[in-house]
Amino acid sequence: MRSLALGVDLGGTNARAAVVDRDTGEIISSHKATHQDRSPAAVVETVAHVVLAALVGQGRTPGSFGQVGVGVAGQCLGRTGVVLNAPNLGWREVPLGELLAARLGAPVRILNDLSAAAWGERRFGAARGFDDALLVFVGSGVGSGLILGGRLHDGHHGVAGELGHVKVRPIRGGVPRRCGCGEAGCLEAYTSGMNIAARVREELAAGAASQVLELVQGDLSGVSASLVDAAHAAGDPYARALWEEVSDLLGNAIATAVTLLNPARVILGGGVILGCPELRRLVLSALEAKVSRSAAAGLSVERAFLGDDAGVIGAALLE
Amino acid sequence: MRSLALGVDLGGTNARAAVVDRDTGEIISSHKATHQDRSPAAVVETVAHVVLAALVGQGRTPGSFGQVGVGVAGQCLGRTGVVLNAPNLGWREVPLGELLAARLGAPVRILNDLSAAAWGERRFGAARGFDDALLVFVGSGVGSGLILGGRLHDGHHGVAGELGHVKVRPIRGGVPRRCGCGEAGCLEAYTSGMNIAARVREELAAGAASQVLELVQGDLSGVSASLVDAAHAAGDPYARALWEEVSDLLGNAIATAVTLLNPARVILGGGVILGCPELRRLVLSALEAKVSRSAAAGLSVERAFLGDDAGVIGAALLE
Repeated sequence: MRSLALGVDLGGTNARAAVVDRDTGEIISSHKATHQDRSPAAVVETVAHVVLAALVGQGRTPGSFGQVGVGVAGQCLGRTGVVLNAPNLGWREVPLGELLAARLGAPVRILNDLSAAAWGERRFGAARGFDDALLVFVGSGVGSGLILGGRLHDGHHGVAGELGHVKVRPIRGGVPRRCGCGEAGCLEAYTSGMNIAARVREELAAGAASQVLELVQGDLSGVSASLVDAAHAAGDPYARALWEEVSDLLGNAIATAVTLLNPARVILGGGVILGCPELRRLVLSALEAKVSRSAAAGLSVERAFLGDDAGVIGAALLE
Repeated sequence: MRSLALGVDLGGTNARAAVVDRDTGEIISSHKATHQDRSPAAVVETVAHVVLAALVGQGRTPGSFGQVGVGVAGQCLGRTGVVLNAPNLGWREVPLGELLAARLGAPVRILNDLSAAAWGERRFGAARGFDDALLVFVGSGVGSGLILGGRLHDGHHGVAGELGHVKVRPIRGGVPRRCGCGEAGCLEAYTSGMNIAARVREELAAGAASQVLELVQGDLSGVSASLVDAAHAAGDPYARALWEEVSDLLGNAIATAVTLLNPARVILGGGVILGCPELRRLVLSALEAKVSRSAAAGLSVERAFLGDDAGVIGAALLE
């Protein structure tokens, strides 16, 4: 008989629940829904809905799984179940664990979505067999998940891995950019897909010349990191200068984490780093230039295997 | 009957062996000697000498302790026992574990001296009771030791914690300074006691004006970080500019590590950070400004308790 686990991946737009085979990582059933609104009460209902929908026909209650793991796109205070800050949900200090446990009638384990994804990759993805691995995610947000000594490292309060909120110093200096977390000068404020697009829109609107403007046919709402990447491939000087800065910041941040933690593997995930081949090449080159030689020895860099499934698998399988 | 362990602290100048009480951390006996020369063969003899001297009158052989832990001032490849790079000993890729095991007739566990010190502080010092703690050492060199999830994290190859070799970007820019490790732009190249003194000597010799010159009465060989600190306290503009840069680099590096790892405690050790109150104040202020608020919540910063004993105690007690 299969041993099953139940996990939830909770993002700013959707919630997805899945029943996962503990021994193979296979998703047996899953259900996804969009939040009606983002208030904690409404989101708890959405989560309850997707959980119950994923269990349809299985003859099991949420409580029969021992615990329900929930990966949240935000900073989570580990064992307390409190979501400290989830910009995409507009939440500050929401006791999600408590609310969900009451609604589902089951113990709930809340953790950051990238920690969950790192654990999913560790169990059945690109970090399988690696006791020390670093998942670096560059998509709409920026963050990381840390597998150290074979375990998920989520830190004293559960907020470890916040690579996106490390403060950086760009080559060209200037006033630190504001970040969605409320602070300024964070890596994410310079390198996430949302922030890259916002910055390019600002600069083009202010008169910067770039092929990106032609690629979007003058419609700035169409600006994206992947169009900057296309412009870079075509030799656009604006894209070259921007990618030089973004890749320097990302490469340096990853190099710092690798020098400090000496992982055997770095796993790249997220639409920006996976969907922008020019940027990825530059980031890997900056990483190679900046990582200490001793930590670089034996290091491999790999793409995430599990894609969008990593978070829900990891949330389900974390003990 | 006491349960005892045997450890060695191996630096560029001295080797010290100690017999340590496993239950209290007390040093029962110890012996220290200066290397005659720094060749691996000569250093192995010095270590054997201090180990046997520490055991005099105890009626025990090194082999009776199960293993001998050896903390080395250098990058050590964990379980292989190879010292990859020890600038202060002038070593590259020395199979110290093998050489010492043969000489002592006992299994030998080689680790970085700051990892050993972090473990000593974890067991009987400033990190006692803290599962997640970061030891930051700023002395003749710069480095760190990581206690994560209650264990020493030494990484895939044993070279984790190399905070001193993270690459940095100083406020004033310029050509990256060379580091003793052979790379350029490392934190240590800007912030260790040796590098601070060397830089101040260079700049004063090149005509920079500073009260430091009066404090050493024109004798540049007397320049030290603590004299820069004294000049800073007296309002010297040269010292102010230098400490602004050094504290920014150290504060940023510690903030990055804290944001990434979410420790409950940062422990400061080493003569520069402990012996320079002005610099320490500036570093703590830069740390506070740059650390993410979520990782700062509940963080405490404390001085190392065990001083020079931390390394030998930690080396002895690591399992």
